[in-house]
Amino acid sequence: MSDHDPGAYFVTDGQGSHHDLFPGVSIKTTTGTNMLLSVVTFEPDSVVPDHSHPHEQMGMMISGRLQFTVGGVTRTLGPGDTWRIPGGVVHKVVAIDGPAVALDVFHPIREDYR
Amino acid sequence: MSDHDPGAYFVTDGQGSHHDLFPGVSIKTTTGTNMLLSVVTFEPDSVVPDHSHPHEQMGMMISGRLQFTVGGVTRTLGPGDTWRIPGGVVHKVVAIDGPAVALDVFHPIREDYR
Repeated sequence: MSDHDPGAYFVTDGQGSHHDLFPGVSIKTTTGTNMLLSVVTFEPDSVVPDHSHPHEQMGMMISGRLQFTVGGVTRTLGPGDTWRIPGGVVHKVVAIDGPAVALDVFHPIREDYR
Repeated sequence: MSDHDPGAYFVTDGQGSHHDLFPGVSIKTTTGTNMLLSVVTFEPDSVVPDHSHPHEQMGMMISGRLQFTVGGVTRTLGPGDTWRIPGGVVHKVVAIDGPAVALDVFHPIREDYR
């Protein structure tokens, strides 16, 4: 099975589906059966503005630092820190301290991120 | 909200629930509403033997290299590589090249990993 086979068990780094979300914010995604994995790259000072979606979102910082505001609670996170954002809760992310990489996972699948 | 509040949006690195799975293999988990995030630490030569579970499992390599065998397909993965293992598919992981760290996510929640 190749990386481009939707049934493949493995996807090589960088081979996921690519989307530019906001200025300086892009994702590479791997779509499963009921979850979607998204590696998010932030350039310095980039912003994911306040938004919400019905999908549950969990994730972990891979590198750098990001300021999250979730349901009105603001916290700056670094490598290994995790988040859990229930569906419908408003959240925002700002790259306040240089570039950063985060991993997000959504359930159910975000069809717009396939 | 504290890290130990099950409703907290954020969990600081290392503060998740800890489980020793196999010799040299341990996890720190964050439990959400319908997903469970698991940071897996492998010591050199450690093994997660063949097993399966009804939960879908997706994940990404954080550091090091691991040899995965999923549904009879064997591949060595490094940082940024991802996997998607449908429920019920037999899989095995071996730390063939030093220590490694991987991030797994399960849906539905693996109750034994809370």
